[in-house]
Parts: sequence; structure tokens; C-alpha cells
Amino acid sequence: MDHELFWISGSPYAWRAQLALEYKGVPYVSRRLDAGKQEHRASAFLALNPRGKVPVLKTGDTALYESVAIIAFLDRAYPDVPLLGHTAQEHGHIWQRVSEFENYTRDLFDVEIVRPLLRGYAKDNPGAMRASAARVYDALGWMEQALSITPYLAGDDITAADIVALPNIQMLRRVAVRPEAIEMELGLEDLGARLPALGAWLSRMETVRGYDAAYPPHWRS
Amino acid sequence: MDHELFWISGSPYAWRAQLALEYKGVPYVSRRLDAGKQEHRASAFLALNPRGKVPVLKTGDTALYESVAIIAFLDRAYPDVPLLGHTAQEHGHIWQRVSEFENYTRDLFDVEIVRPLLRGYAKDNPGAMRASAARVYDALGWMEQALSITPYLAGDDITAADIVALPNIQMLRRVAVRPEAIEMELGLEDLGARLPALGAWLSRMETVRGYDAAYPPHWRS
Repeated sequence: MDHELFWISGSPYAWRAQLALEYKGVPYVSRRLDAGKQEHRASAFLALNPRGKVPVLKTGDTALYESVAIIAFLDRAYPDVPLLGHTAQEHGHIWQRVSEFENYTRDLFDVEIVRPLLRGYAKDNPGAMRASAARVYDALGWMEQALSITPYLAGDDITAADIVALPNIQMLRRVAVRPEAIEMELGLEDLGARLPALGAWLSRMETVRGYDAAYPPHWRS
Repeated sequence: MDHELFWISGSPYAWRAQLALEYKGVPYVSRRLDAGKQEHRASAFLALNPRGKVPVLKTGDTALYESVAIIAFLDRAYPDVPLLGHTAQEHGHIWQRVSEFENYTRDLFDVEIVRPLLRGYAKDNPGAMRASAARVYDALGWMEQALSITPYLAGDDITAADIVALPNIQMLRRVAVRPEAIEMELGLEDLGARLPALGAWLSRMETVRGYDAAYPPHWRS
């Protein structure tokens, strides 16, 4: 199968798909879009995903979107390096962890912390930002607990749950050290120190096969 | 395998799990909780799911929660009546449809329409309710389009996508005919008439194997 991955540097959702491809060792052609030039709003891209969102994985004539669906597809197509378990029990448990991240964790980061800081409206309501930041620690409680028992979110091995969670958490950490975030005293810049099991997991994940290849290139400069 | 399903009548998330069990013909012991007596907050239940949410599927000593994870588990454990496709391409496409419902459709119903009406605070802001109701039609656009091409959300057969979407939509329809919703002119009481492909799908889904068995019992009275 020939695959093309359409992505934008720094999109945590695109990063998930790229990390899954790299971790599994699946060859693909990289199609990086320039968000500054609105390439994800161009008609050629909207023909692949009418929502204008990355990632899209194009395989032959088929365009697949939604990061979690791309991971599920890759795991069925390339089962040798499994991300969704071997047994039905493991499979269910990994999907539970994915759902917990998606349903109770992701939007808090993305909607309440990352976007207000990136788009500049965080400063309009520092009190609300601090309240959201406090809730980040509550929302990460289940991860800290899971990671204090097993090295990865769904057990002894890296799974889709780790790959889904990592990019959003790295994005949160990146915006948390911005001067305006420090000035507002969000208290998110020492995530790994305040949540030691999460901190150890982050260090482990940063050495995972494919991590460097999938790391957002514009974050290096 | 012996399964026990913990559920609350009228919870769309519990309904998804029950519908998957019934549709697949998997035997299970029904454990209905009484939300009025806060049985989902009792310590015995919190030991199964610390979030105090239904559904929980208990299999031996293992408690699995999150409706989508329960469906994924059941599909791996009982593949004879597949809900997540045969090929990797079908699998990815079905997960894409599930993600589209979960990410772009579900919360609009649940958070902006159903809860304000059930909990009585809809009347505090009828203008906001009408704006949300208008957005419901936008959010259902992708479903209307998909269902105008194929009889079910991800193709010619019933899949996890249909089972995930149906209970939330039935819940929306149920609250939409409340006198206060009609009085506010939300315009949601004729969903099937305004979206004919969705309306035809609803009729088809109401005849599906297991639909009657999984229908919320207190809705009949």
C-alpha cells in the first residue's frame, strides 16, 4: 500500500498519526501543509477532508481522516507492531484509555489552555486561565495513577493510548513556558515535577522509536 | 465469558453498549442502576468505575468502561456479527465515522441541548438555545450527506458508527418535543422531516435486532 500523510507542523493530531506511522515503521510520503498559507483550506485539500483538518492519510484513492481512525486503520493493516493489543481484553482496555484521554482530558488542554495562549486572548481573563490550569492537574490525575502502576498508559507496552496522549501533552508543555503563561502564574511549567509518574513517562516517550522523526520540525528552530 | 452490564435507563452511553450486546446476541446479566437513588455514586459502583459513569461491562474480575471501548472489546471478542468492518479500510472508515460523531456532533446535543432542557436551565437563555439548535442542523449535515449515499453511516451494513450515534439522536428527539422546547421554538421536533435521509435511517434503525430490548424501559411508561 502506498500512503501519503498530510500534516501541519505542530498539530498534535497530525503528530499522533505521524508517530504511529514512524513507530510502526510504515513507509509513507510526507505532505507537509503550510498553515500560514492556508493550504489546509485549499480546494485540493478540502476534497480530501471537507473539514479542512489534518491529519489525512491518503491510500490510493481513499482519504482517511480523524487521527484515532488513522491509528486504528494502521493497526489493522500492519499488525506486526501492535498498538491496540493482542487479546480482546487488552483491546478494550486500550480503547478505554484512548476514550478517557479524548473525553476527559484533551479539550481541557486544547480549548481552555492552548488556544487562548496561542491566539492571544488568554490575557483577557487570567482568572479563568488559572482556574483551567488547576483543572489540568485534576484531569491528569487518572494518568498519574495509571503510570504509577505500569510504565505506559495501558500496561507494559506502548499502545495507541500513549500515542494519542503524548502530542497534546507536549503541546500543553510548550505553551506553558510562554512568558505570558509564566506571568499569569498558571503553574503548568513543572508538570513532570508535580506529577512524577507522568514525568518519567514523558522521558520514556521521548526516546521511543520514531519520536525524533515525528517531532514538529518548526519547534526545533 | 460471563458479562454483567451496569446501566441507567435513558443514558445514551449505556444504551450504546446494551444495543451492541443485543445486536451481536451476546448473553449478559443486566444490572440496572437507579440514578434517583444515586446508585452510580455508591462505593460498590465507584470501585468498578471511579468516574461513577455508566456503562460498565464487568467480565470476570475486569471492569471495562467508556461505551466506545466496550463496543471495541465486544467486536474483538465476538467477531461473528462485525461492527467494525472486515478489512483494514472498512475498519478505518468506521472509526472515522465514530470519531466524527464523538468530536463534532455529540457534545452539541448533549451539552448544549439535552442537559439545559433536562436540568431546567434552558429557560434562562432561550436565544442561546435557539442558536445551539440551529447549529444542530449544521452538525448533522455530514450524517445527512453520508446517509443519502449509503443506508448506514459507514456503508451498506450497520456498524459501530450507527450504534454510537443512534442513542444520542433519540435522546435529542425526546427532549425536543418537551413543551418548553416547543415554546422556545427550537425547531428540533421535526428532525426526520427536515433531514430526510436521517429520517429514513432512524426508521431503519428502529427495526434493528435488539432495538426493542435495549430501548430505555422508563421511556415506555
